[in-house]
Amino acid sequence: MLGFADRLFEKTKKAKTPLCVGLDPRWEQIPLAIRKPFGGAVPESLAAVAGAYESFCGRVLELVSDRVGVVKFQAAFFEQCGHHGFAALERLLLKSTQLGLFTILDGKRNDIASTASAYAEAAFGGASFGGKKFGVWSADAITVSPYLGTDGIEPFVSQARSLSCGIFVLVRTSNPGAGLFQDKVSSGEKLYRHVARVVESLNLVAVGSSGYGDVGAVVGATYPAEINELRVLMPRTIFLVPGFGAQGAGAKELAGAFRADGSGAIINNGRAITFAAKPDQMDWENPLVRACEKAKAELAEVCSL
Amino acid sequence: MLGFADRLFEKTKKAKTPLCVGLDPRWEQIPLAIRKPFGGAVPESLAAVAGAYESFCGRVLELVSDRVGVVKFQAAFFEQCGHHGFAALERLLLKSTQLGLFTILDGKRNDIASTASAYAEAAFGGASFGGKKFGVWSADAITVSPYLGTDGIEPFVSQARSLSCGIFVLVRTSNPGAGLFQDKVSSGEKLYRHVARVVESLNLVAVGSSGYGDVGAVVGATYPAEINELRVLMPRTIFLVPGFGAQGAGAKELAGAFRADGSGAIINNGRAITFAAKPDQMDWENPLVRACEKAKAELAEVCSL
Repeated sequence: MLGFADRLFEKTKKAKTPLCVGLDPRWEQIPLAIRKPFGGAVPESLAAVAGAYESFCGRVLELVSDRVGVVKFQAAFFEQCGHHGFAALERLLLKSTQLGLFTILDGKRNDIASTASAYAEAAFGGASFGGKKFGVWSADAITVSPYLGTDGIEPFVSQARSLSCGIFVLVRTSNPGAGLFQDKVSSGEKLYRHVARVVESLNLVAVGSSGYGDVGAVVGATYPAEINELRVLMPRTIFLVPGFGAQGAGAKELAGAFRADGSGAIINNGRAITFAAKPDQMDWENPLVRACEKAKAELAEVCSL
Repeated sequence: MLGFADRLFEKTKKAKTPLCVGLDPRWEQIPLAIRKPFGGAVPESLAAVAGAYESFCGRVLELVSDRVGVVKFQAAFFEQCGHHGFAALERLLLKSTQLGLFTILDGKRNDIASTASAYAEAAFGGASFGGKKFGVWSADAITVSPYLGTDGIEPFVSQARSLSCGIFVLVRTSNPGAGLFQDKVSSGEKLYRHVARVVESLNLVAVGSSGYGDVGAVVGATYPAEINELRVLMPRTIFLVPGFGAQGAGAKELAGAFRADGSGAIINNGRAITFAAKPDQMDWENPLVRACEKAKAELAEVCSL
C-alpha cells in the first residue's frame, strides 16, 4: 500500500487540484430545503440537527467528489450535536472514502502517551480491545496541536504510520492572534519555526516516493511570507493551508506552498464553497458547484497538477 | 449563582480535600466482574466497551461522591468507543452532577472563533440552534490547549463565564517532553510563563469572593519548582494538577500550589485510585476506596480545607 503522502498526492493529481472542501456545518447556514424535514428554522432535537448536517454534508460530498480529491471535516460542529453528531460523522467519513475522497478530520486533538494513542486509534479506525479491532472513524489524516511537545505528537505519528495515514500539526495558524505564542523568539527563532523543525525531523525516516513524509503541517494562508519561509524549512512536509477564501487570502498569496510539480500543499476552502448560496435559495447546488470550480480555477493559476 | 471559582472552592471545602478522581477507563484494566456482561476478556462491540466504561465509571462515581468534590473525565477514552462512548459520557456527566460532584471534561480542545464556541457550547450544555438551546455535555469545566493564542482561548472563556463554568488552560504539562516548546525562552521568559501571564490577565475582570477567576491552569505536579513559581505569577488562577500518584509526584512536591486556606488547586489522581485493584480481583471496590482515602490523607498533610 502507498504511504500517506503518496496516496494524498495521487488524489490531488487525479482531481487536478490541491483544493480541499471544508465541511463546517452550521444550522443557520444550511439550505432551508435541507432543514425542512428536520424542523425548518428551529430543529426538534439534537438528533434533527445531526440529521440535517448529515443530509447536507452527504449531498456536498456527492457534488464535489469528482471535482476535488480531499475533504476536511470540522469535528467541533459534530460534537455540538452530541453523540448524534459523532454517529453522523462516522457515516460521513465512510461515505467520503466510498466516493474516493481523501479525508482530514480537523479535531486539533492533543494529549500524551496512551491517551494520545486513544485519540489516534479512534480517528484511524484502529481501536483495539481485548486484542480485537473496532473501527470508529476512518479518517486518512487528523490535525494535532503541538503545545505538549514531541511526546504529544509521536503517539499520533506511530498510529498513523502503521495504517498509511498521517497527521497535520498546527505550525502557523491563520487566526489574527496566532502570533501571541507562535511568534515568541528563542535562540534567534520564533516558536513556530521550532515546531516546524520538529515536524520536519519526524518525516526524515518515512519519506514516500512523492518526496514527503506522513507528518504534515497546518500553515495559514493569511501569512504568505511565512509560507515561503516554511516551505524552505520543511521540504519534506505537506502543508494543510486554511484561510483561503472566507478568511481573505487569495491564490497568489499561497503560491509558495507548492513545488513545481504541484505537490506540497492542500488548500482548504470551507464556507465560501459550502455556503455559496443563501439559506433560503431553492437552488443551492449550482452556486456551490460554481464556487468550487471558481476556487479550483484560482488555484490552477499557482499550482499545476 | 456563585461563579466558577467559588463553586469549585465550596465543593473542595465540603469534601475537605483538593483531590480530584480522574476517570480514564481502559478496557484491559477494568474489573473483569464489570466486563463480564459485556463480553468478558473480549468485548462484543464498541457499544459493549462503552457499556462497560459507563458501568465502571458510574460505580466509581457512587464510591467517591461522598469522599471527593471533583471528578475529571478523559474524553479520549470515550472517543475511542465512537458515538457509544459519547452517549455514555453524556450520561456520566449528568450522573456526576446529580451526585453533587464538580466535573472537569479533559478534552484539551482548541480552535478559533465560532469553532471554539461550538466546542465550548457542547461542553457546557449550551448549544443553540434556531434560537433554541440543546444540552450535550454538562461539564463544569474543560481543559483547553493554548497554541492558537488568545483568540483560541477567549471564545471558551466567554461561553464558560455566561454559565458560571470555567476552563483550565494547559500552561505547564506533566509529561517528560513538556519542555520542548514550553521551555523556549523569549524576552527573558519561558513560553509557559507567557501563557501563564495571559491566563492570569483573563482572570482580572472576574475574580470571585474566593479570590480566583474562571480561567484555570493545568500545572504538572512533576515540576515542583515551577508550581511555586507559577503560584506567585498567577495569584488569581486555580491550578488543575495532574501527575500526582501514578506519574510519580508526591504530596510534598505540590504543597506550593495551595494558599493557606487550602484553596488554589485541584489535584488529579486517576489510575492509582480507579485501578487500585487488579482486573481479576473480585473485590475491587474496597481497594479503590482505600486508595482514595490514602490519597486524601497524603494531600491533607499539605492542604488543610
